[in-house]
Amino acid sequence: MISYSSGNHAQGVAYAARALGVKAVIVMPDNAPKIKREATASLGAEIVLVGPASSERQAKAEELAAQHGIVPPYNDEKIIAGQGTMGLEILEDLPEVETVLIPVGGGGMISGVATAIKLSKPAVKIIGAEPALAADAQASLRAGKIIHLTADEVTRTVADGLRTQSIGPINFEHMLRYVDDIVSVAEDEIREAMRRLAVNPKTLAEPSGAVSVAAFLFHRTELPRTKVNVAIISGGNIEPQMLADITQSASTV
Amino acid sequence: MISYSSGNHAQGVAYAARALGVKAVIVMPDNAPKIKREATASLGAEIVLVGPASSERQAKAEELAAQHGIVPPYNDEKIIAGQGTMGLEILEDLPEVETVLIPVGGGGMISGVATAIKLSKPAVKIIGAEPALAADAQASLRAGKIIHLTADEVTRTVADGLRTQSIGPINFEHMLRYVDDIVSVAEDEIREAMRRLAVNPKTLAEPSGAVSVAAFLFHRTELPRTKVNVAIISGGNIEPQMLADITQSASTV
Repeated sequence: MISYSSGNHAQGVAYAARALGVKAVIVMPDNAPKIKREATASLGAEIVLVGPASSERQAKAEELAAQHGIVPPYNDEKIIAGQGTMGLEILEDLPEVETVLIPVGGGGMISGVATAIKLSKPAVKIIGAEPALAADAQASLRAGKIIHLTADEVTRTVADGLRTQSIGPINFEHMLRYVDDIVSVAEDEIREAMRRLAVNPKTLAEPSGAVSVAAFLFHRTELPRTKVNVAIISGGNIEPQMLADITQSASTV
Repeated sequence: MISYSSGNHAQGVAYAARALGVKAVIVMPDNAPKIKREATASLGAEIVLVGPASSERQAKAEELAAQHGIVPPYNDEKIIAGQGTMGLEILEDLPEVETVLIPVGGGGMISGVATAIKLSKPAVKIIGAEPALAADAQASLRAGKIIHLTADEVTRTVADGLRTQSIGPINFEHMLRYVDDIVSVAEDEIREAMRRLAVNPKTLAEPSGAVSVAAFLFHRTELPRTKVNVAIISGGNIEPQMLADITQSASTV
């Protein structure tokens, strides 16, 4: 199995490959956090490092895929369907949910969750959250067409898992139909959300996982006025040094 | 409601008082971590600070209790019965459990959990864990009588929740019957257990909560040779500065 991803998808593919007894090769940007490389490698996958451009990652994976099968990280109907199970679980656990906040990178998770929820319970609001420094999904949804950012632009955000330069076309179709809005959050807001998550519910989120909580904490006026809100926090690959920096810092927002 | 405790018991009493609409007053040692004082106060309780000696804390609480009801933190049959529900939950969730590791301070939690488990499934081994710098429970169990330490002695450990100078007499009776052994752990082992819990299962434990995991990680030869082991991690009141220090540090054990 081949895939290109730095985060949960990489670990998911590595995990599945190991369970099935096949080899996994993951193409990762060379600026991915060490903790993500190690977590993926510890699941038995081989890591191939490339430059930070999404296109480079995808090209390398497709080159390798000529020999093996490829598991795309987001622009794929089966991946979207798999992510959708999260939406069904939310409805099962909290049927009274009114709004769901979801981190947006390539758009796989929000496509799946939004579709599963809207087709089951259309009144539930679906809001994406992404860093203002990589807000291609918000721009795309507002423009009605897919907006591309450069690798240099998206690399500015601390949320390394959301540095995709554009959402996938299959994802965009799902988002146009089922996503109500996308909120963008500042870097300081992401850090403060991580800090509060660590201190009180004692939940360790990486920056990409905390954007949904940052949207809830600091952009309330842009959100639906609902009482029962869910924020998906995914993932938790936080470097010990970053956790130390964040828990030590005073609030800046 | 009056009680004396710095940790989970304090927060539990504060929580229960608020739920019942009555006032809670908690007598706490003045060296209790700020995060514990704040967490208890944020649940609406009034905090009364006294010196670090257990006797001082208890005396102050009993003085206040003349006017109000008192909820003792460990030397009490109802508190022990309440803690026992944790043992029943472990058996329900993991019927194949063979050994349970439990932090020991005053002895409330281990009394309840040990009793519930041994009366349900006598083959399960019950092992207590405490800091070597406050190992009064281990000394007591081995001597067959309650051993008292001074406030100065127990204050040396980082595990502030386990600084009780002696276990309660009711607790000791339970422990004599239902606890197989007590393992004591070094300060470095406690810190390393906290670090590993934070990095991988992303679980934030305070020092007192991590002693059970430290026993499992670093004292395997002193434990029963069983495959299915449970370590109770309680609690998670970790100061942001300590979390920062610990996640930054390299392993020293």
